[in-house]
Amino acid sequence: MNYGMGLLDALAEKFGVFPGISEKTAWKMVFHVLKMPKDIATNLANDIIQVSEKMKKCQVCRCFTETEICHICCDETRDKSMVCVIQNMKDMFAFERMGYKGVYHVLDGLLSPMNGIGPEDIGICELLARVENSVISEIIMAIGPTVEGDATTNYIFSLLKPLGITVTRLAYGLPVGSSLEYTDDVTLNAALEGRNEI
Amino acid sequence: MNYGMGLLDALAEKFGVFPGISEKTAWKMVFHVLKMPKDIATNLANDIIQVSEKMKKCQVCRCFTETEICHICCDETRDKSMVCVIQNMKDMFAFERMGYKGVYHVLDGLLSPMNGIGPEDIGICELLARVENSVISEIIMAIGPTVEGDATTNYIFSLLKPLGITVTRLAYGLPVGSSLEYTDDVTLNAALEGRNEI
Repeated sequence: MNYGMGLLDALAEKFGVFPGISEKTAWKMVFHVLKMPKDIATNLANDIIQVSEKMKKCQVCRCFTETEICHICCDETRDKSMVCVIQNMKDMFAFERMGYKGVYHVLDGLLSPMNGIGPEDIGICELLARVENSVISEIIMAIGPTVEGDATTNYIFSLLKPLGITVTRLAYGLPVGSSLEYTDDVTLNAALEGRNEI
Repeated sequence: MNYGMGLLDALAEKFGVFPGISEKTAWKMVFHVLKMPKDIATNLANDIIQVSEKMKKCQVCRCFTETEICHICCDETRDKSMVCVIQNMKDMFAFERMGYKGVYHVLDGLLSPMNGIGPEDIGICELLARVENSVISEIIMAIGPTVEGDATTNYIFSLLKPLGITVTRLAYGLPVGSSLEYTDDVTLNAALEGRNEI
């Protein structure tokens, strides 16, 4: 809603298009900017411009970075032969929190032929080139088990299999700490199929 | 949490200090900035700087505005003799949505002697000066019925009463459309005390 407040309306509208930001939260943010010291607001504005202008894709793993090669791909302590394929950079953070010590390949989402999104649109060609040009012992497919996720995983697997590389996927099963009583049938079935000897 | 992502971490941290923005939402916003066209990001950054630098308080009602006098106080169609006293600018929007046609006096929050916030800190002195220097027929106290809200309302009333001005306050009672069953005792008591003949 426009309150005839000029600049404030304009800023609220811009905050309002961010994902997960309601009109109410957008206005809270505008009032927060009003209360901010000017240098803090300037720093925020500069960061937005910098992120928008300076971030590019890492030439190895395709995550966003300020440099040609990201800090993860540059890190000598990481196992470069283990590549975790994820559908976007957000998923990288989950692995980083967990302390994963391999490297990544970040796709731009999932295959979606219905929407005209093919392998060349999401970075699968770059993954193939990477596999051919470097020493990789294992590709871990870490894409969520949705219809499009499975299609993407299977497609990548079909490309990598002829190259003789070990391709694994994350285990499906019961979330740790979950109750059997509330587990959905598909997950329970996956847990049963993937059962391990104790 | 810092992911060693440089600029991205810095921006996520800055978004994270906004009210109502969780770490997760802050990161969603960062990724949204990454996907934005550069000119949109620049406009957003400029708006933040403009809001931070150009907004000042209206010399009449103390709401934030780009001009000396805000568009509400300049509006010839509004009833300047009816002044609604509110505790911050957010509350103004509620009245604007409703179609209120008087003008406002915006306080900087509420009296709070425990925190050292006195009448001179929240703009009560300016309200008194305004009442003395202009033709005002009614002051509507529209401050929420909290302990500090009531203290502020009562304090302002005690100052205005000797000046012979009509001071009203918003009615307390049942919210329209509410169910008696779920109404709290204090509100029900207020509704009973303020009962009107049909």
